[in-house]
Amino acid sequence: MKFPIVTSLLAVYMLHPCVGMENEPDINPSKLERIKKEVAGYKDIAKSIIDLVVYGRAQNRSYERLALFVDTIGNRVSGSDNLQNAIKYMYNALREDRLLNVSLEPVKVPHWERGEESAVMVQPRKKNLAILGLGGSVGTPVDGITSEVIVVSSFAELQSRAEEAKGKIVVYNQPFVSYGETVQYRSRGASEAAKVGAVASLIRSIASFSINSPHTGWQYYQSNVPKIPTACITVEDAELMARMTSRGIKIVVHLQMGAVQHPDADSFNTVAEIIGSKYPEQVVIVSGHLDSWDVGQGAMDDGAGVFISWEALSLINDLGLRPKRTIRLVLWTGEEQGGVGAEQYYQRHKKDIANMDLVMETDTGTYMPLGMQFSGNPAARAIMAEVMQLLAPINLTKLYDPADGTDISFWMEAGVPGASILNDMSKYFWFHHSEGDTMTVQDPILMNLCAAVWTVVSYVVADLEEMLPR
Amino acid sequence: MKFPIVTSLLAVYMLHPCVGMENEPDINPSKLERIKKEVAGYKDIAKSIIDLVVYGRAQNRSYERLALFVDTIGNRVSGSDNLQNAIKYMYNALREDRLLNVSLEPVKVPHWERGEESAVMVQPRKKNLAILGLGGSVGTPVDGITSEVIVVSSFAELQSRAEEAKGKIVVYNQPFVSYGETVQYRSRGASEAAKVGAVASLIRSIASFSINSPHTGWQYYQSNVPKIPTACITVEDAELMARMTSRGIKIVVHLQMGAVQHPDADSFNTVAEIIGSKYPEQVVIVSGHLDSWDVGQGAMDDGAGVFISWEALSLINDLGLRPKRTIRLVLWTGEEQGGVGAEQYYQRHKKDIANMDLVMETDTGTYMPLGMQFSGNPAARAIMAEVMQLLAPINLTKLYDPADGTDISFWMEAGVPGASILNDMSKYFWFHHSEGDTMTVQDPILMNLCAAVWTVVSYVVADLEEMLPR
Repeated sequence: MKFPIVTSLLAVYMLHPCVGMENEPDINPSKLERIKKEVAGYKDIAKSIIDLVVYGRAQNRSYERLALFVDTIGNRVSGSDNLQNAIKYMYNALREDRLLNVSLEPVKVPHWERGEESAVMVQPRKKNLAILGLGGSVGTPVDGITSEVIVVSSFAELQSRAEEAKGKIVVYNQPFVSYGETVQYRSRGASEAAKVGAVASLIRSIASFSINSPHTGWQYYQSNVPKIPTACITVEDAELMARMTSRGIKIVVHLQMGAVQHPDADSFNTVAEIIGSKYPEQVVIVSGHLDSWDVGQGAMDDGAGVFISWEALSLINDLGLRPKRTIRLVLWTGEEQGGVGAEQYYQRHKKDIANMDLVMETDTGTYMPLGMQFSGNPAARAIMAEVMQLLAPINLTKLYDPADGTDISFWMEAGVPGASILNDMSKYFWFHHSEGDTMTVQDPILMNLCAAVWTVVSYVVADLEEMLPR
Repeated sequence: MKFPIVTSLLAVYMLHPCVGMENEPDINPSKLERIKKEVAGYKDIAKSIIDLVVYGRAQNRSYERLALFVDTIGNRVSGSDNLQNAIKYMYNALREDRLLNVSLEPVKVPHWERGEESAVMVQPRKKNLAILGLGGSVGTPVDGITSEVIVVSSFAELQSRAEEAKGKIVVYNQPFVSYGETVQYRSRGASEAAKVGAVASLIRSIASFSINSPHTGWQYYQSNVPKIPTACITVEDAELMARMTSRGIKIVVHLQMGAVQHPDADSFNTVAEIIGSKYPEQVVIVSGHLDSWDVGQGAMDDGAGVFISWEALSLINDLGLRPKRTIRLVLWTGEEQGGVGAEQYYQRHKKDIANMDLVMETDTGTYMPLGMQFSGNPAARAIMAEVMQLLAPINLTKLYDPADGTDISFWMEAGVPGASILNDMSKYFWFHHSEGDTMTVQDPILMNLCAAVWTVVSYVVADLEEMLPR
């Protein structure tokens, strides 16, 4: 995920589950009674889905498929050959898996290339700094930039020491509060530093724990502000430089970055369907993003989201089920640069918004699932709360507010109900956008549980007699 | 620490505390009563030490001194300029801190230099592998070694596939059981691989958790076995290659290591004293090792041990205390290559073994202290159990068996009682011998607690009317 909306973290730590009728849905009570009965009728189907993926012959399949995929392809940043290979791989895999209307929808995505990069503290003593340049950053001149460092712990401190920052490399040593709050240092740290005349910015990685691990991510240059090179350093090195400067020590850093912004590249959203039996034009989207950062394996962000989404369609086919509505698997491209592929998908398909029943995306890990995050009106929420009761056999009945997902945000903002999985994210930012995002952090058992939630919800919503109200 | 004796881990997880009289000490009951009374007389002094370091003006001093030292010097591998600088730094600091007999005792230490090193998986696709060459390893030819890989999960599997390993790079993907058990893959993996004709060995880092972090450490070539280059890879990459080969995929790795073994270098054990008032020739040693690996800052292994040991002497001086016996601070050199400095110290001073009262070393971190590890006969243990009761104000009264410490092992094997701090090591091997061993893992509050234990025990034992029985 690129920018988890702040609320996704709030949801984990602060919001209360909103179960059932508490919000007084704007729905006729007798109609709700009827829908409750209709949903309850899916108890056996839900149980068969759970049995198949949690205990049966489909268990661990999403994990095994993901491992084969990421081990074969590697990471998949927008514009890279790897991403093109990944798209071809998935196109073929989805066709081989009996899915219909498998297609590639062309879009343009940013093509930023990291190139060679390094940073060395050259004064008061030589020390290599582990860095990852930030997506969209300009490179340095070929010989690099050598400059004194100023360490600040906030934008406010930078403002108050603006004169001092001129001509220097700004090091941000902001504390990690939450991803949603702290990521602003990554996303706008370069431009804020450039405004006060800095020549580069180095940002403490947006991570809640570190083993000297740098984390990358996208950043945005503001218009009419000089573009300066910017990279993330490790928590450890940010703290080191903060301690040293607090003792009055002068630090000089040599930064070299070969980053290049190429013209936008061709890419594709990858689509496959189970076609609805009764209302094929009405759609439930189940999704994750296929692109990743150019480090690690992109197994967690968002390989796992892609593969439990595919798993939902596989399970439905395995059980010989066919919902009334179409379930459409979409593997977004260009998410890490700001939901670029998903936005173009929305622009192309928004004419069909009246038929978009529910948009689902999981892009915050597949750790221990805790329930479903949902955005929709009270009537839709009341129905969704009933659907979640079908997951009682694995104790995953809770509904939280709101849903989260860069790629589905375009539809949600236009009023379409959205859903995402709430899971235990306590270690997510240890690995996020770093070399640590590999299969080693994935757990097949937890992926089975996530896939069960994902499949029951998408199938039942797609098969109800009526679309979710909005 | 180099090789924590297996028992140090056993002590954490398995052994029961041996408090007080359970082991029927071989000591005259009336004498023990007298000693118990004598020890109880230190209650106020113990309280004043605790107050000063945990709550008073000395709190966080060991942390601040450690930070200034490791930030200034960096890591300190045997034979390096950094280690020489570290020794000079400490020599001056100890003199400035009013300590007496500050001296440098010359020893010879191995001088292994890492040089440039890299590993790349070149088939079936290109992927950089994060590595750390192992101490003592030979380098590769200048052009490196390019060879197919065989992945094994144990020495037994290597034996059973010996024919297949010939001419290949052996990758060990052994599970992490405990450091004491699993470290054998690092220490003898290269020679075991060479015996079956392998050209190099890559070993999964000996770590209980990883963010794609390689860990180094010393390794031993067996005599009459060809010396092949050897390095640790990350847990993630070991698992990746294991998954790939299990699918029948052929993996080729290119390994390049510029490692060089230079002639032994001059180094020093750094010594300082508080001279005993009544039995100055009798000695309690308080110690840690000043050398580290050539990654991270060596803040945890064993900077922290050095600085809480120094802190003990500072606190005793701060309080105007002067024990009957001499308290000798020893900062060992060359520990990571097998207690090389400590062994030479032992050879030089063993003639005075009759006057060696107690040898103390802390080299397994300064996380939450849980009590004291002790090696000694039942009579000595009974006395030590009484001393530990003086730490009741901070609830650190437990005594465990045995003590642990490479550098003090030479004395302990010759019958001198030894002591080390047992602390919560659950995260120790996340950082051990890696770039993650920095000040960021150190906690000033926990260092205060460790220093309190260390100071009370060393002072009281050094001030008792009689030496510990052995």
